[in-house]
Amino acid sequence: MIISETKSKLLENVLEKMNLIRDIQYSVAVLGWDQETYMPEASAQSRANQIASLETLAHQEITSQKSADYVKKIEDNICQKTDAEHRLLNLFVNEYNKSIKLPKELVSELAKQKAISVESWKIAKHKKDFKIYEKDLEKLTALKREEAKCLQNSDSKNLYDALIGEFEPNTSVDKLSVVFSNLKKESLDLLSKIDFKSKNSHLKTPKHAFSKNKQIKLSKMIAKKMGFDFTRGRLDLSEHPFTTSFSKFDVRITTRQNKYDFLPCFYSTIHEVGHALYEQGIDDSLSRTFAEEGSSIGIHESQSLIWENVICRSFDFWKWASREVKHVFPENFENWEAVDFYKFSNKIDTGFIRTESDELTYNLHIILRFELENLLINDKIKVKEIPEFWNSKMKEYLGLEVKSDDLGCLQDIHWAFGGYGYFPSYTLGKLYAAMIWNEIKKDFPDYQTKLANGELLFIRRWLKDQIHKCGKLYTPEELIQKIAHRPLSSEDFTTYIKEKINSIY
Amino acid sequence: MIISETKSKLLENVLEKMNLIRDIQYSVAVLGWDQETYMPEASAQSRANQIASLETLAHQEITSQKSADYVKKIEDNICQKTDAEHRLLNLFVNEYNKSIKLPKELVSELAKQKAISVESWKIAKHKKDFKIYEKDLEKLTALKREEAKCLQNSDSKNLYDALIGEFEPNTSVDKLSVVFSNLKKESLDLLSKIDFKSKNSHLKTPKHAFSKNKQIKLSKMIAKKMGFDFTRGRLDLSEHPFTTSFSKFDVRITTRQNKYDFLPCFYSTIHEVGHALYEQGIDDSLSRTFAEEGSSIGIHESQSLIWENVICRSFDFWKWASREVKHVFPENFENWEAVDFYKFSNKIDTGFIRTESDELTYNLHIILRFELENLLINDKIKVKEIPEFWNSKMKEYLGLEVKSDDLGCLQDIHWAFGGYGYFPSYTLGKLYAAMIWNEIKKDFPDYQTKLANGELLFIRRWLKDQIHKCGKLYTPEELIQKIAHRPLSSEDFTTYIKEKINSIY
Repeated sequence: MIISETKSKLLENVLEKMNLIRDIQYSVAVLGWDQETYMPEASAQSRANQIASLETLAHQEITSQKSADYVKKIEDNICQKTDAEHRLLNLFVNEYNKSIKLPKELVSELAKQKAISVESWKIAKHKKDFKIYEKDLEKLTALKREEAKCLQNSDSKNLYDALIGEFEPNTSVDKLSVVFSNLKKESLDLLSKIDFKSKNSHLKTPKHAFSKNKQIKLSKMIAKKMGFDFTRGRLDLSEHPFTTSFSKFDVRITTRQNKYDFLPCFYSTIHEVGHALYEQGIDDSLSRTFAEEGSSIGIHESQSLIWENVICRSFDFWKWASREVKHVFPENFENWEAVDFYKFSNKIDTGFIRTESDELTYNLHIILRFELENLLINDKIKVKEIPEFWNSKMKEYLGLEVKSDDLGCLQDIHWAFGGYGYFPSYTLGKLYAAMIWNEIKKDFPDYQTKLANGELLFIRRWLKDQIHKCGKLYTPEELIQKIAHRPLSSEDFTTYIKEKINSIY
Repeated sequence: MIISETKSKLLENVLEKMNLIRDIQYSVAVLGWDQETYMPEASAQSRANQIASLETLAHQEITSQKSADYVKKIEDNICQKTDAEHRLLNLFVNEYNKSIKLPKELVSELAKQKAISVESWKIAKHKKDFKIYEKDLEKLTALKREEAKCLQNSDSKNLYDALIGEFEPNTSVDKLSVVFSNLKKESLDLLSKIDFKSKNSHLKTPKHAFSKNKQIKLSKMIAKKMGFDFTRGRLDLSEHPFTTSFSKFDVRITTRQNKYDFLPCFYSTIHEVGHALYEQGIDDSLSRTFAEEGSSIGIHESQSLIWENVICRSFDFWKWASREVKHVFPENFENWEAVDFYKFSNKIDTGFIRTESDELTYNLHIILRFELENLLINDKIKVKEIPEFWNSKMKEYLGLEVKSDDLGCLQDIHWAFGGYGYFPSYTLGKLYAAMIWNEIKKDFPDYQTKLANGELLFIRRWLKDQIHKCGKLYTPEELIQKIAHRPLSSEDFTTYIKEKINSIY
C-alpha cells in the first residue's frame, strides 16, 4: 500500500472529493469508449452533450468552495504527511490551481467546439478537403489560445508551453527544442546516408490474406503473454486503436485489422497492451485518486513503445515469436525465418502517414507537428496556412509531395479534439523508452535468452515496480532521474536506432 | 414540434437544468448498459461507485437553490405557457418536490446498498440460498421504508403507495387491489376449469437445436419489420433482456438465447423492440427533458406486451410469421402450419418462473409479489419470512411446491436493486395493452388481413401518434382516458384471454 489506510481527516476529505471527480472522469471515459466501439451513428450529438455536461460538472467540483478550503488547508501544511500523501495532496492542489484559472464558460465552450470540430474533421478528411474544417479549427484554435493564456505560468514566455504542460508537465518549448533539434539532425543524417528504398526491394513479403479471427487470436495470445489481465479489461475493435481506463479494474484496449498485413493488428495490440499494463499496474491504494493514471503522456507512450518497438521488434523476440506467428498463419509464411520477420517488421521507408511510419522517420513527423503547433499557437501562422506549411515541411524532411490533405494535415484527429501539445509526447515516449530499456538490460544480463524463449513477464514486473505502481505520484523528470540517473536526452534513442539500422541495412 | 422553439426565459432556464440532469441520467444508463453487456467481471465495485457518484450529482442538481428558484417561479405562474409547456414545467416541479424530500445521505446510502444487494443476490441465487442475501435485503428494505416515508403523500394511508408511485404515478394500493382481486378471481377460475397439462401433451414440439446466428438474424428481421431504427439503436446479448435509452437517438435492446427453443429469443426481442419504439418515437422537441421517457412503467410495459403477446402471438400474425420462421429454420419445423406455431407459442402451463410463464398465470406471479410487497413495506411480515410466504402462495395459486429459493423468491433481481413497487407495472401493462388493442382494432377494420400479410408498421404509426410522441407529458390515467375513453379495468384483458383460451383449448 503506497497510501496507508490510516488517514488524516483532511486527506479523507480530499480523497472523497477526488473520488467523486474521478468517478465523473471515468464515466466520461466509458461514454468515449462506447462512442468509438458500439454507439449507433445518429447519437453523436447526444453523446457530445452528455460528455460536455459531465466535464462541466467535474470542473464545477474541483473549483468548488470546498475544494478551495481543502487547498488552503493543504498549503497551510496542517497535517502530518508521508511523502506519498504529500504528493497525492499536491496533485489535488495542482488540479485546483489549474482549473480555477479556467472560466466555466470556456470549459463548456471548449467541450462543445471539440465535438463540432471532430465531426467536421471527419467530413473534411473523408472529402480530402481542409477547407471544410478550416473555420471550425480556427474557432477551436482561438479557444485553445485563450485556454493557454489562462493556464500560462508567469515565468513562461511561450504560450505553447501551457498546452504542452497539459500532457508533459515541467517541460517547455525551449527544452524540447534542444532535444528535438539534435534528434532531427541525426534522423535527417541517417535518412540521407542509406538508400532504404532500393534495399527494401529485397525484403520478403507474406502471401495470401490474413484471417480476421486468427489476427484476434494472435492478439489475445500476445496480450496474455505480456501480462494483460482479461478479468480487468477487454479487447475490442475500433477504427483507431486506443486504450482507456475506467479504474485499474477495467482497462480496455482496441485494435484494428488489415486483411493483407497482420502487423498493424499485432503491433497495435502490443502498443495498447503496453499502455494497459501501466493502468492495470497502479497500486490499489491510489484507486479513484488523481494519481490513478500515468505520470505523463510521454511516460505513458514510453510504456507502449518500449513493447511495440524496442522489445517486440527485436531479433531476440522474433526468435520466439516467428514460431508462434507461423503456427497461427502457416500458409502465409512458408520458408520464413526469424530474421525475415525481424527485417519485415523493421522496414524503414518514407511515407505520408505518421501512424504507418517506421521508428526513424516517425520522429520527423512529430517534429513537423511540434514546429507547426509552436507557430500556430503563438499566432505566427494562421489556421488557413496549415496545409502549405505542412506540405513544404514534408518535402523538406521526407522528400514527399503531399497531393491531398487526407495524406497531409488532415490525417490526425488530435487538433480536432483540441489536443495541441500532445504530439511531442510520442517522440518523448521513444526517447524515454530507449533510456528505460538500457536500465532493464543492466538488471537482466540474460535478457536475450529470456526473449528468445518468449519470456516477457520479467519486463512487466520490472516496469510495474519501477514505474506503474506509483501512478502519477512522480513527475516524468523525477521518474526518469530515479530510473536512469540522468535527465532526458535523445542520445540513447539515436544509439539504439543506429544499431538497429546497421544490423538490417 | 410539441414544444415550440420560441421559449420564455424561464422555460429556457428550466430546460438547461433538465438537460444537465438528463445528461447525467443518460450517462448512468450507459454505465448500466455496459455493465450488463461488456464490462469485465472485476469492475463491479468501481462501476457501482461511478453510478452512485453520478446519481448523487443528479440529486444535487435537482435539489439545488437554482432549481428551487425555478420551481417557485413556475408555481407563481409568471410566464405564458402552452398546455405542453405547462406539463413539461410540471414534470420539473414534481421531480423537485420528490427529490427535495429525500436527504442526500439517503440517496447515496440507497445507491450503495443497491449495488451491494445486487451482488449478494447473485451469489444467493447461484447457491440457491435466501439466507446469504437476507441481511442485505433487510438493510435495503429498511432504507426503502425510509424512502417511502419521505415520499409519502399526506393523504395516503399506505406506505407502499409511495413506492408504487415511483413507477405508476396517480395510483394506489387500494385502487390496484380492486383491479387485481377481480383479475385473480378470474384467473384462478380459468385455471381450475381446464386441464391444460393433459391438453398440452398433444402439442407439436420443434426438432433439433437452433443456430445462434440464425436466432439473431430472425431477431433483426422482426425488429426492422416492427420499425426499430438501427441507426438510432443496437441489439446485443445479455443474461436478462432489457431496453435502455441514452436519448431517442440511441436506444439499445438486448435479447437472450436458448439453444433448444427459438421462442425466448424471438419474443424477448419483440418485447424489447416494443419498449424501444416508445423511446425512439418521442418527439424531438422533448429531447433531454424529463418528458423524454414513457408515461409510466405500466404504460411502457403495455407497449412491449401489446407486441409480444397481443400482436405477435395472434393467429393472424402467425399466418405470415410461420413462413418466415420456417424459412430461417427449415429443418426444425417440417410439417408445421401457422396453427401449430399459434398453439405452441400460446401454451398455458403452471411453472415456477415468472419470466417463463404464460399470459394467464403470469398475473398470478405478479399478484403474489404485490401482496407480499404490501405486507413487507408495511412491516407486517419480515424479510426472513419471505420464502415461507412465497412458497405458501405458490402452492395456493399455482399448486406448486417450491423446492429451492432460486425457483422461488430469489428468481427476480428487482428487490435487490430496491425496485419495490415495480412488479404491478407488468400486469398493468397487460391490462392497458388489451384496452389499447381494442381501440386499434376499431381504427383498422382490416387489421387481420394486414397482420396476415406481415404488415406491422400501421400499428407502430398509430402507437407513435397516440402514445409515443408525447413521452411523459401525460399521466397513465390521462393517456388511457384519452385513448380508450374509460379508466383502467381488467375487463378487456379477461375477455381477450378467454377468447384466446377458447380458440386453443
